[in-house]
Amino acid sequence: MSRVYNFSAGPAVLPEEVLKEAAEEMLDYRGCGMSVMEMSHRSGMFETIINEAEEDLRDLLQIPENYKVLFLQGGASQQFAMIPMNLMKNREADYIVTGQWAKKAWQEAQKYGKANKIASSEDKTFSYIPDCSDLDISPNADYVYICENNTIYGTKFRELPNTKGKTLVADVSSCFLSEPVDVSKYGVLYGGVQKNIGPAGMVISIIREDLITGDVLEGTPTMLNFKTHADAGSLYNTPNSYCIYMCGKVFKWLKNMGGLSVMKERNEKKAALLYDFLDKSHLFKGTVVPKDRSLMNVPFVTGNPELDAKFVKEAKEAGLENLKGHRSVGGMRASIYNAMPVEGVEALVAFMKKFEKENV
Amino acid sequence: MSRVYNFSAGPAVLPEEVLKEAAEEMLDYRGCGMSVMEMSHRSGMFETIINEAEEDLRDLLQIPENYKVLFLQGGASQQFAMIPMNLMKNREADYIVTGQWAKKAWQEAQKYGKANKIASSEDKTFSYIPDCSDLDISPNADYVYICENNTIYGTKFRELPNTKGKTLVADVSSCFLSEPVDVSKYGVLYGGVQKNIGPAGMVISIIREDLITGDVLEGTPTMLNFKTHADAGSLYNTPNSYCIYMCGKVFKWLKNMGGLSVMKERNEKKAALLYDFLDKSHLFKGTVVPKDRSLMNVPFVTGNPELDAKFVKEAKEAGLENLKGHRSVGGMRASIYNAMPVEGVEALVAFMKKFEKENV
Ligand SMILES: Cc1ncc(COP(=O)(O)O)c(C=O)c1O
Ligand SMILES: Cc1ncc(COP(=O)(O)O)c(C=O)c1O
Ligand SMILES: [Mg+2]
Ligand SMILES: [Mg+2]
Ligand SMILES: [Mg+2]
Ligand SMILES: [Mg+2]
Repeated sequence: MSRVYNFSAGPAVLPEEVLKEAAEEMLDYRGCGMSVMEMSHRSGMFETIINEAEEDLRDLLQIPENYKVLFLQGGASQQFAMIPMNLMKNREADYIVTGQWAKKAWQEAQKYGKANKIASSEDKTFSYIPDCSDLDISPNADYVYICENNTIYGTKFRELPNTKGKTLVADVSSCFLSEPVDVSKYGVLYGGVQKNIGPAGMVISIIREDLITGDVLEGTPTMLNFKTHADAGSLYNTPNSYCIYMCGKVFKWLKNMGGLSVMKERNEKKAALLYDFLDKSHLFKGTVVPKDRSLMNVPFVTGNPELDAKFVKEAKEAGLENLKGHRSVGGMRASIYNAMPVEGVEALVAFMKKFEKENV
Repeated sequence: MSRVYNFSAGPAVLPEEVLKEAAEEMLDYRGCGMSVMEMSHRSGMFETIINEAEEDLRDLLQIPENYKVLFLQGGASQQFAMIPMNLMKNREADYIVTGQWAKKAWQEAQKYGKANKIASSEDKTFSYIPDCSDLDISPNADYVYICENNTIYGTKFRELPNTKGKTLVADVSSCFLSEPVDVSKYGVLYGGVQKNIGPAGMVISIIREDLITGDVLEGTPTMLNFKTHADAGSLYNTPNSYCIYMCGKVFKWLKNMGGLSVMKERNEKKAALLYDFLDKSHLFKGTVVPKDRSLMNVPFVTGNPELDAKFVKEAKEAGLENLKGHRSVGGMRASIYNAMPVEGVEALVAFMKKFEKENV
């Protein structure tokens, strides 16, 4: 067995220890004689798994008592509809559009009410985060929506927008658990787990209880009503049980690593290695305004598409996988989530140095 | 490692060979240096996995060219809304209510239009399938809906209803791939994979192409529009990729076993072992009218709830797990899906004989 360094934006690298444990437990979970994949979601064994997962997540993020944690199917894309269906009581909401995912969420919301684009960074290919300290928040807005870390463009809200008292809803798919977060500043924060947590097929949504009213827009499917899942502890119907199990293992791994403050330091160190090199390099350059750079997704270019393609190809041959930028922007992107070891980033920088020497 | 016989209704037993392969490939899928859980769903490697899965499924079920195969999230419960949202052009449909799952689907459909209950077996605790050879099909009905195998009550449509030309929609969650099926008789057949195919977290929906119009009810989320997924080959957003991989392995296992005709014979043999014993037993009895008995889910009772509980407890101690009936009906239920070996059913019958001797 030989493992590559996998810079995929998601599904993405998982901690090797976690994968090893999962492999060992595949046919017989802790002496119970079956795989977690084969367990009834109503069994006592699975109850322990889901409850521990939730508790560990609550510990890691210090989630206040008055927030529910939901394990949902459908991907982050399904939340683009669930958010307005559940929260748009006034049929109006404000969206800050900082990338493709925020834009898709904004477009989906237009099906359900007035979705105002109150700020955008599309004018400069989403390469920065707009100033959100004093926006025109709509008086009737039920919430203000952001995509906190923009996976494709590599930007991050270093400071949350001033919502002027309105509920903040954030898609944290690509920065989930990368650093400590003050959950009480959000009404809803949610993310697909397939980037920084576990295998694909689940979203974790953390929702302040008063926002879970059951009073949803007409025509909202039972399965898209937050209350359905909140009332049933995410077991209204069969959940993605294996994914819950894997995420639970990652939560324990994060606690063993020292929790989110330690992860933040580690992530800052990894990102600095890469950004520092990009800033010095004569061949490569980062595409994001320095103050808004993401710790998780680092896009860069040579300025020459052919050279970019050559880089991606040769990097792959050197065991550095998935460095191609998103199909909508080109260039390169290195996603360096929690599970990417420092050694992976060091290997990438070393390879970039070598490539630069050979190609300038 | 010691494996039990797991009679869970779902998530349920999987073929041991499949679990072994998955364990072996967990850290390094066929020399690619990463787990399938870590693979970009846009990668060439994953493309091969999803394409092979679809091809093998098409082979097994002999799916005609003019049907799409969709791999979707949200569970069967989400289909209860997706079906009317996509198919109720006239805002009317006919439902045959043969159990809790058909009933839930019928209730959900009422959100979207006139959902007529044209037949039901609720009068006798859903212990039979009503005669559906000459029902009052509504002239404006967009489709006729059935739950083909009723997981909780253990009944099965041995013959499809006469829909008088209307589109047939069937929930086949608990009989999926248990025997050959003439797909061309259905407009849509769909099922959660967590019973007879793979781990939880995915539904496979097989839909005749002319029913995928994109002309859906107002307010239908993008993610609940069949066309979204059909146009994108189930990769509109990140799918439950590990589940697709596991199901793909099960499809290959089924082909190796000889395909669905062989599985049918095998399933009939297993079911006969159990039903024959139930019919002879002085302690146990089956709860379903013989002609409508399911090959997959076999509910039975002693008639004495305390004795039922004792049975379930002692069976568990003997390595026969999850024999408790559904919380809504009590008694016992043995789910004997494809992956349950004949030896498991033999062990169950032997244990029932022993228990009968000790308790009559
Ligand atoms: C920030 C963000 N939001 C939403 C999505 C869409 O997620 P999903 O594929 O789970 O629908 C992505 C996926 O890449 C993302 O990066
Ligand atoms: C026949 C049938 N339909 C639907 C469901 C609901 O499936 P899910 O839990 O995937 O929503 C079940 C689950 O047990 C079932 O047996
Ligand atoms: Mg983005
Ligand atoms: Mg530079
Ligand atoms: Mg049923
Ligand atoms: Mg009897």
